[in-house]
Amino acid sequence: MSGMDRPSSTPFRFPVAARYAGMESSPLKDIFALAAKEGVTSFAGGIPDRELFDLGPVQEAYDWVLTHRGHRALQYGVSEGEAELREQAARRISRTLPTDASQIRVTSGSQEGLFVVAEALLEPGDVVLVESPTYLAAVQAFAVHGARMVGVDTDEEGVIPEALEEAIRTHHPRMVYLIPTFQNPTGRTMGVLRRRQVAEVLQRSDVPLIEDDPYGELSFTGSTWAPIASLPGMGERTLLLNSMSKLMSPGVRIGWIRAEGPILDTLAVAKAAISMQSSVVDQLTVARYLETADLDAHVRTVAEVYRERRDAMARAIAPILPEGAHVTHPDGGMFLWAALGEGYDAQTMLADAVEAGVAYLPGWSFFAEHADRSTMRLSFVTHSPAVIEEAIASLGEVIARHPR
Amino acid sequence: MSGMDRPSSTPFRFPVAARYAGMESSPLKDIFALAAKEGVTSFAGGIPDRELFDLGPVQEAYDWVLTHRGHRALQYGVSEGEAELREQAARRISRTLPTDASQIRVTSGSQEGLFVVAEALLEPGDVVLVESPTYLAAVQAFAVHGARMVGVDTDEEGVIPEALEEAIRTHHPRMVYLIPTFQNPTGRTMGVLRRRQVAEVLQRSDVPLIEDDPYGELSFTGSTWAPIASLPGMGERTLLLNSMSKLMSPGVRIGWIRAEGPILDTLAVAKAAISMQSSVVDQLTVARYLETADLDAHVRTVAEVYRERRDAMARAIAPILPEGAHVTHPDGGMFLWAALGEGYDAQTMLADAVEAGVAYLPGWSFFAEHADRSTMRLSFVTHSPAVIEEAIASLGEVIARHPR
Repeated sequence: MSGMDRPSSTPFRFPVAARYAGMESSPLKDIFALAAKEGVTSFAGGIPDRELFDLGPVQEAYDWVLTHRGHRALQYGVSEGEAELREQAARRISRTLPTDASQIRVTSGSQEGLFVVAEALLEPGDVVLVESPTYLAAVQAFAVHGARMVGVDTDEEGVIPEALEEAIRTHHPRMVYLIPTFQNPTGRTMGVLRRRQVAEVLQRSDVPLIEDDPYGELSFTGSTWAPIASLPGMGERTLLLNSMSKLMSPGVRIGWIRAEGPILDTLAVAKAAISMQSSVVDQLTVARYLETADLDAHVRTVAEVYRERRDAMARAIAPILPEGAHVTHPDGGMFLWAALGEGYDAQTMLADAVEAGVAYLPGWSFFAEHADRSTMRLSFVTHSPAVIEEAIASLGEVIARHPR
Repeated sequence: MSGMDRPSSTPFRFPVAARYAGMESSPLKDIFALAAKEGVTSFAGGIPDRELFDLGPVQEAYDWVLTHRGHRALQYGVSEGEAELREQAARRISRTLPTDASQIRVTSGSQEGLFVVAEALLEPGDVVLVESPTYLAAVQAFAVHGARMVGVDTDEEGVIPEALEEAIRTHHPRMVYLIPTFQNPTGRTMGVLRRRQVAEVLQRSDVPLIEDDPYGELSFTGSTWAPIASLPGMGERTLLLNSMSKLMSPGVRIGWIRAEGPILDTLAVAKAAISMQSSVVDQLTVARYLETADLDAHVRTVAEVYRERRDAMARAIAPILPEGAHVTHPDGGMFLWAALGEGYDAQTMLADAVEAGVAYLPGWSFFAEHADRSTMRLSFVTHSPAVIEEAIASLGEVIARHPR
């Protein structure tokens, strides 16, 4: 029990699992760091405007829970989620897809939902088919489980059914991950016919669908889209993820997964292993909020503001884009997606942009493979039209200084 | 795009990852189900008495946060955790181990802390050395990462240094997981000399320590134990986990990991992949509570009540145990551990016990290997002395009907 084998001046190094080797940071962490930089108008993060939070009713809901359900709110709950919240979630989903509270699994935001799904389904070496481009934090949750992402070609309506079928035949994927409505990062939406075609491909090939729908209610046209999970035969083969982050609050970290059958048990066991259960205080508060506040009216108000900001950004960005560039015009959600075209590198340009007081998210990180480095994602939700116009004008000057 | 390859009457089955195959439930979920059964006095779960929650000050803290930090509380935070909470955590740890806020990573309870550690460190096939017996939910978080648990022999003071050194030599473990103070499930505590001996073994062999300390402040004697992490040379090679679950509220789901050096970055990246960040509302509330309420006084009050209950259980259980049985007498925490002795099977006996209106947790599930099936864990914190005495008397009748 005496003497060391090595000099104490050598600092100890923890062994790091291969899945995190060389990852001193994560793409999303870098977004948040960038967004926080003094004097920069950031379009990088998908960060709601805090002035639009429904703070009064949320505070009332916390107060009610702590006053009337205080002892229960501070006590252990269950891994599946609190009954009241599961009922409210089922009620909302049932507008388009009949759902019972027993089919809901509560998660600490959609990120934990994606991680729970990956835990439950993925083996190292599995292929996950994703839209090209797709949401980078989902990719990360899948990648740390040893999955290999394969991007499927998309057009203005999202994933192309023939490309999906071909990719399934070639890669034998464990699952397909799609964000059909107001997609991140492109803002694109799959129409009804396209949804049916995709559903047919998935049923024919028996590949499960992970349907991520955090933005679907943020519609600028009044139209909303029923999830693919609601199409005939799809409910049983889809894990549908919703989140309160974009509708009520990202800081409260509450989302849920809707599923059918035995996988519900596996999801609960995985959730228990990961974090036992989500905050009972937050769960009961969100349930109370959904029961008593008018979330639909709140979302309409928020969407109206977001629509004005999309208009402002769309107007401002059109004249500053180089010839041959392309930009999406989303009917909802939070993001515009611009492709400057061959010769441009949005990553290289970012330092200049930040110098000029404007930040965006370079698009390359959203591609599983064959990245288009001329792309950028711009969130239009955080700033007022005036701020958007000024910052996009600055971005225009930066682009003009970076000829292809 | 037409026709299915298989009849639609065959229900779809999701593929389940091997790590969860056959796990339709988890040991901890079963505890909670058992604990909830009508008419049963349950000693199974480590469930705080809700009447002892510091509800008023907790509610005040939520109210203050939502009134004065409302917009920030509802907004995205950072994966590392909110600054105020990290400062409060560092302040508490610094009583025995100098710690800066930058060395704290916030987690959604200790369970997520253990999962984050497993994510960051473990490769499939790695060996984790654990106390025999040890905390079963930690084992689960390690096991789903493909680790193999090897139990190290313990005595009245926890893990035996010579056995630990021998196990390290034999198994080349990735890490050692210990609960040195008021251990779960045994209630045992490592003395100061034992801690030094264990620290020497770990430094000599260069194996990192995962030190789980959720109960350490719940002392019945006035004495508290500095963590092994505070011994010379151990801070840099230890991940120290604390939780607010047993001190303030399990429903709020806030804990933290204390670490040094580059592993802090990996822990933050893993946390981001798992759940992005913990509830900002809950984090700021716990920070406010730690800043303004007197947690130490609250914990003293709780510990005084728990001490009376330990005394009640110790008094009641002594006469009902068969000859040759053994029961621990913890100086803090939540659990008594009883070994009935050869021939008894606590698992088999449980159905009879529940029938007689009393539940405990069979001890076999706490062993990584070579389970002593005559053991049981009894939490003494949930019920009053009178209820404890009556239920333990009923347990005595059940034991008497189950001769070895």
